[in-house]
Amino acid sequence: MTKTITLAQGNGGAENAELISNIFYKHFKNETLAKSEDAAIIEGGRLAFTTDSFTVSPIFFDGGDIGKLSICGTCNDLAMMGAKPAYMTCAVIVEEGFSVADLETIVLSMKKELEINGAQIVCGDTKVVPRGSVDKIFINTTGIGIVQKEGISSNCVSEADVIIVSDQIGRHGATIFAAREGMRFSSALQSDCASLWPLVEKLLDEGIAITAMRDATRGGVAAVLNEWAKQSNVCIEVNDESLPVSDEVRGICEILGFEAYTLANEGTFILAVKSEDAQRTIDILHRFEEARHAAIIAQVTHQYDGRVVLLNGWGSKRFMDLPTGELLPRIC
Amino acid sequence: MTKTITLAQGNGGAENAELISNIFYKHFKNETLAKSEDAAIIEGGRLAFTTDSFTVSPIFFDGGDIGKLSICGTCNDLAMMGAKPAYMTCAVIVEEGFSVADLETIVLSMKKELEINGAQIVCGDTKVVPRGSVDKIFINTTGIGIVQKEGISSNCVSEADVIIVSDQIGRHGATIFAAREGMRFSSALQSDCASLWPLVEKLLDEGIAITAMRDATRGGVAAVLNEWAKQSNVCIEVNDESLPVSDEVRGICEILGFEAYTLANEGTFILAVKSEDAQRTIDILHRFEEARHAAIIAQVTHQYDGRVVLLNGWGSKRFMDLPTGELLPRIC
Repeated sequence: MTKTITLAQGNGGAENAELISNIFYKHFKNETLAKSEDAAIIEGGRLAFTTDSFTVSPIFFDGGDIGKLSICGTCNDLAMMGAKPAYMTCAVIVEEGFSVADLETIVLSMKKELEINGAQIVCGDTKVVPRGSVDKIFINTTGIGIVQKEGISSNCVSEADVIIVSDQIGRHGATIFAAREGMRFSSALQSDCASLWPLVEKLLDEGIAITAMRDATRGGVAAVLNEWAKQSNVCIEVNDESLPVSDEVRGICEILGFEAYTLANEGTFILAVKSEDAQRTIDILHRFEEARHAAIIAQVTHQYDGRVVLLNGWGSKRFMDLPTGELLPRIC
Repeated sequence: MTKTITLAQGNGGAENAELISNIFYKHFKNETLAKSEDAAIIEGGRLAFTTDSFTVSPIFFDGGDIGKLSICGTCNDLAMMGAKPAYMTCAVIVEEGFSVADLETIVLSMKKELEINGAQIVCGDTKVVPRGSVDKIFINTTGIGIVQKEGISSNCVSEADVIIVSDQIGRHGATIFAAREGMRFSSALQSDCASLWPLVEKLLDEGIAITAMRDATRGGVAAVLNEWAKQSNVCIEVNDESLPVSDEVRGICEILGFEAYTLANEGTFILAVKSEDAQRTIDILHRFEEARHAAIIAQVTHQYDGRVVLLNGWGSKRFMDLPTGELLPRIC
């Protein structure tokens, strides 16, 4: 490892995983941490528990703000473990001189999103720091969810599953990038920031055999699929042409040389479901505005265990690796 | 309220309470929040849940560092509700360029303190932000504790109770202040930063009738006593001469015109116990190195409900109000 922390170590990709493993997992070692799920499962499987700090810049963006993001992000991590979001904490670090009206707007965004999830903020913390100690506002939310379906796990993906993505990918990353660079696009480009519990609840109610779910945040689809391939020791074969990408995101990717599957999402998730339930899953997801473009994107094989393979329409294949490098800091 | 956030709004005192009430409580309103306890009591009284973000500067100080503080602070909030710390989250926001060796030192401090509490980090989050977005490192910890004794509450203090402080007051605040100002004192001045669960566990094991407990962090003893007086609608009469203050803290206070009872503590707590258990409480506390100076400091009356009165040795009295003004930012 490097001697000082680098931006790449916060990318949600390879360097980030190395930092977490070499510093945090190494010293905090325990069975729950070792599972590397989106949320820890505690109390004999009854509760899910997860935390996220939000440092997004700009704090207001097309499709959301840091408040909405802070509730979606944490509630989605609970939903991805089949848990209904219930109790939340809210810890705000705000810079001296920050607008009180903006703070209230952010809190109202949080409130609205809490209602969608049926969750409550039950405790909080507020720190005000002098100018220069923090850039505007950072929010940590930590959530407890009530597990509705046990056993959902990134460690259990198998050849019996197919891989589905819930909507067009890369929109949050592209939106933040465009805002940061002052690029102007049609209003069609906006973050996918959304709460996923209503969709997950419906899938569970309909009895879909879900093996794993994960929202494709930092590091995008590539990060999730690589983690699953490694954790479940399988090969995930992605059909490049099946990845739903909007024209706006495709445009930004072409200009800048990005791959949409490495860009962050904040309301788009990946599912591994038993293949017999795949079509029914797609049909249910399509009923939701946030999942109109849900599609099967990959099969699970044992061709290259622990790796993700990208197949193009011409029959050629290459590895889709865990993203590396700086990517985009302060994306979430 | 002001139109922009002020440092005073993070002081743990009057302006902080106003901000929390007018923005956060107002919009997040629910029964659990309304109780204003150190930790939320959830799941039918079985679990306690609390969060804290740590922004202390300097990050290494006499008696601790931001890592030790981040575990003590959150575990103590659980202990204050009679809950045994169990599951913790750790969310780190670190500046690009931060020393990896320093990060590991901080994580090792956390590990050591987790062991004292018998708690585990079960999930985490790591964000790296560009230089200038954060000053060095901020850590959020959120904890779940298993309630061992129900009913401990700041809303239940009555004339049947006496008020005890567990040790000499103001040491954390004085230490951070001295470090920030480059003041040199004898090595005897150090933060009281410590985990309180072992002390609380002993008090519970011995069957002490504890009405309320609170660690006297931001805003110090004055903030805790004022909150209790208001929440329980009683008058707390403090005997000024009974407040244990070390020579070093007294010296800093005299030079700078502070009152030790407004300075932050990070391992010193206030208890309200039934008067018949007072002496036994003191005796138990005195067995611990961290509570050698435990003393009865106040009686509960109805002379001025909702207020704290400070009595001096000459028989004069004045109100000890909730601290106001900037106090010391980034104390925790």
